[in-house]
Amino acid sequence: MQLNNVTLGIAEWRDLIRRVEIGEVREPLVNIDDSDAAPWDAIFVGGGAAGRFGAAYLKAMGGRPLVVDRWPFLGGSCPHQACVPHHLFSEAARELDYMRWNSGTLWFPKFDDSTASILDLISLFRSGRAAAHAFMNWQTKEQLGVEYVLNAEATVIDCHTVNVADGSYTARNLVLATGAQTAHPRIPGIRKRGVFDFASLIEDLDYEPTKCVIVGGSKVAMEYGSFFQATGCQTTILSRSPLMRGTSLHHVDEDLRIFVVSGMRARGLTVHEDSATLEILGDEHVEGVRARLADGAEIVLDTDFVLLATGELPATAELVRTLGIELDEHGFVEVDTQMRTSVAGVYAVGDLIGSPLEMFKARKCGMTAARNIMGEPYTLDLSQYPDFLHTTYEVTWVGLTEQEAREKYGEIIVIQMPPNGLDQPIPLPLAEGSMLYAFTRPEITGYQKAVFDARSRRLVGAHHVGFGAKDAFQYLDHLIKRGITIDELGEMNELFLNPEHFIQLSRLRAGQHALHDL
Amino acid sequence: MQLNNVTLGIAEWRDLIRRVEIGEVREPLVNIDDSDAAPWDAIFVGGGAAGRFGAAYLKAMGGRPLVVDRWPFLGGSCPHQACVPHHLFSEAARELDYMRWNSGTLWFPKFDDSTASILDLISLFRSGRAAAHAFMNWQTKEQLGVEYVLNAEATVIDCHTVNVADGSYTARNLVLATGAQTAHPRIPGIRKRGVFDFASLIEDLDYEPTKCVIVGGSKVAMEYGSFFQATGCQTTILSRSPLMRGTSLHHVDEDLRIFVVSGMRARGLTVHEDSATLEILGDEHVEGVRARLADGAEIVLDTDFVLLATGELPATAELVRTLGIELDEHGFVEVDTQMRTSVAGVYAVGDLIGSPLEMFKARKCGMTAARNIMGEPYTLDLSQYPDFLHTTYEVTWVGLTEQEAREKYGEIIVIQMPPNGLDQPIPLPLAEGSMLYAFTRPEITGYQKAVFDARSRRLVGAHHVGFGAKDAFQYLDHLIKRGITIDELGEMNELFLNPEHFIQLSRLRAGQHALHDL
Repeated sequence: MQLNNVTLGIAEWRDLIRRVEIGEVREPLVNIDDSDAAPWDAIFVGGGAAGRFGAAYLKAMGGRPLVVDRWPFLGGSCPHQACVPHHLFSEAARELDYMRWNSGTLWFPKFDDSTASILDLISLFRSGRAAAHAFMNWQTKEQLGVEYVLNAEATVIDCHTVNVADGSYTARNLVLATGAQTAHPRIPGIRKRGVFDFASLIEDLDYEPTKCVIVGGSKVAMEYGSFFQATGCQTTILSRSPLMRGTSLHHVDEDLRIFVVSGMRARGLTVHEDSATLEILGDEHVEGVRARLADGAEIVLDTDFVLLATGELPATAELVRTLGIELDEHGFVEVDTQMRTSVAGVYAVGDLIGSPLEMFKARKCGMTAARNIMGEPYTLDLSQYPDFLHTTYEVTWVGLTEQEAREKYGEIIVIQMPPNGLDQPIPLPLAEGSMLYAFTRPEITGYQKAVFDARSRRLVGAHHVGFGAKDAFQYLDHLIKRGITIDELGEMNELFLNPEHFIQLSRLRAGQHALHDL
Repeated sequence: MQLNNVTLGIAEWRDLIRRVEIGEVREPLVNIDDSDAAPWDAIFVGGGAAGRFGAAYLKAMGGRPLVVDRWPFLGGSCPHQACVPHHLFSEAARELDYMRWNSGTLWFPKFDDSTASILDLISLFRSGRAAAHAFMNWQTKEQLGVEYVLNAEATVIDCHTVNVADGSYTARNLVLATGAQTAHPRIPGIRKRGVFDFASLIEDLDYEPTKCVIVGGSKVAMEYGSFFQATGCQTTILSRSPLMRGTSLHHVDEDLRIFVVSGMRARGLTVHEDSATLEILGDEHVEGVRARLADGAEIVLDTDFVLLATGELPATAELVRTLGIELDEHGFVEVDTQMRTSVAGVYAVGDLIGSPLEMFKARKCGMTAARNIMGEPYTLDLSQYPDFLHTTYEVTWVGLTEQEAREKYGEIIVIQMPPNGLDQPIPLPLAEGSMLYAFTRPEITGYQKAVFDARSRRLVGAHHVGFGAKDAFQYLDHLIKRGITIDELGEMNELFLNPEHFIQLSRLRAGQHALHDL
């Protein structure tokens, strides 16, 4: 189906995607300008965040990219199975939590968790996600001018050639952007019905879980587990290591970690850290999970619902076979800081190259490949970045932890809320949307900490639990890298009541020649 | 009551403040170190945001400040009657709005606005606010080391001397920080019962309003009006000028304004712009308001509740009489950029010096006075700052509007969400906590716009409706002043789904040599 000469609106794209999904349309969706004789500068194999942003950047620079994807939409797993449903679940978790704590007070009715359904929310997402898909297709074509072939499996033939449907396309460069999927650990019984990963959860769940066991301690474990628990589905996390202390998260401050994990437990989640999942029990459908706890005891957890949250792996076998690209020790594609693989002219981006499996990384390595392909040498530094996850809170952090800063700089100061040494929780909200808590349960409004190198007076780390600070941490990351000091922070214009109070707390100390904790 | 040698915790401070409020304690609360023979560098008359931060800064620099306040707590009107209840109301407005739109879906019960009470929320605030007061007293004494005398009226004797209770204190400088109160316009009937301003609303409301008329179009009008309406109290705003276009708000983008005001109307608020309030009707208690609308027609609005939101004025008569300080044309104290009044050695800070009546301004002019008093020449630039207000949304803006930027730079580009030219609302949440809306009513998730000078590629304005961006706008203000470009924004690390999408939208355009709108 050639679409290059027509302009489809959101409603039309949505209808077309739906027709693909129900099998009414099987042919590729082709948005290629046949009248353009220019050669392809790059073919992006995979149109998720990395491929789509890379192609858009290359096009903006004056190049000609082609994006191919097996799905009938661009944007990849994010709007289809990953970040978007995760945020929908996390918003629900926060709201359910709010309605529980306030149950029976003010205008809040008695909270009845029998009305909170995991299946309902997944159904809502499933029925609505095509609108986001439609937007991606529309924006990429109409606003970004990027050509693409969708709903067609691509076969990489060599380092310049990709076959898609009936066509064969040749480009100066290939950019591999085929993503990753949940790694399925070798646990007996893992193929039983009722065992899901984040993708199959969206596609296949067709009953309301009553109890949940999560295998793994990743962000997905914490995020989805907090949602399940908030709906009233009793949830247990089986994690091999302490939550937030695994290798995939860097710079997690211990005070922040304690606030977050104890908050999960206070909301009824069972967290077994340092545990091993031994077996998924049941006939066809999961009925229980056998596990060994940190103290060596074996337990059996009754459950009708298991979520695997054990991290992700890329599907690279085909690429290794065809192109001979090298992988790292974890199976991800090895790239340099310009996103070049071991094969000349072939780049790899996104989840295919490993952690962090985050949106900014995907998009920025797409951009990095594009710039290098277009002759502008550009390297991507992934050594420092802000990070976040959700429980019933939004948790954000950037820079160094207090302990890391102390080890690196020796003399540091910490400003935090609540401060140390108080006899009771302070009634100031430490995050957005926690003002009611401030008057009823001040101990749960949030937590925040900023760490400064006492000598240079530079901000070196910031940590926040609660809502409303995530957006700011993007800019704090930039400012930390540029060496922002407590003095400069103290001269900024805060918007009170700000979710984090770093500016005004800095101002309370900035007058000091020798800085002190606050 | 001398408190300097004891350490009171939050609970003890709270109890002491309560005993003052019920008249059990009438004496001044004195936190002065009598063993310290150092002279006072400054007396801060008024311990609100401006006075308290000024004193803290001066102390941090090694000086000796004294703060005096007639209330038994520091922090001023913010935690007592102003910003804190405003944020409590705005959180309630957002939450009530959310529960209305989602009424009867998912886990949300049928929304019953008979359970939403203005009086209940005010009572909750009133009974809890002393904890915030207690924290201010504790922090100022124990963490900041600032001396003070509370619960005592201060009388300014001359430019070095203040009498407080039985004592007379002399200092090198005076810093006047006595704040402002709602300006009461000359409208017949304005003294009737049932007519409130933001302060008396907190202190005196003792019935549940059924209908509300707000006189004035200030931030307070929009913020409190949106809350009243959200509780089910039918609210009408009578504003002399279009909302958000008054002289007290700068740089309000017209698209943002339209989204905000039409959103208020969509939620049932009646807004009469360009109207005049003629008379408050009723016997002892207000029963109605007579007004003239923009078209000249006179109407009478039935109501049992009127809120005055006509801006603020300082109480300066005493200061003029005693010190002879000069006022500006609006009655605010005239100061230079160092916060010096017309009288040598006398500074003025906070709401006393006029708009913006915002927290950052109060605190920063306190700091400015402190630095100059301590011999460090320092000027405060209030020409550009970020701003915000609440409806059922949080609305934030910084820098120039699209139109201002066009007039100043000629060639500009705009990136915005939703984009122009779409046939239907996009299902991407444009603010925090709006993911459910994205799947049910995408037209109300939010609005965002960033404006760039096309030639220099610099960000010159940013505008957002929705929640979650306020914290970030503090740092965007700083970055705009430092000349951040679309290229630098595009290289930052976004935390997706970010409430505003400026980083990733910048990246979609930054590759272009000649920039285009998005």
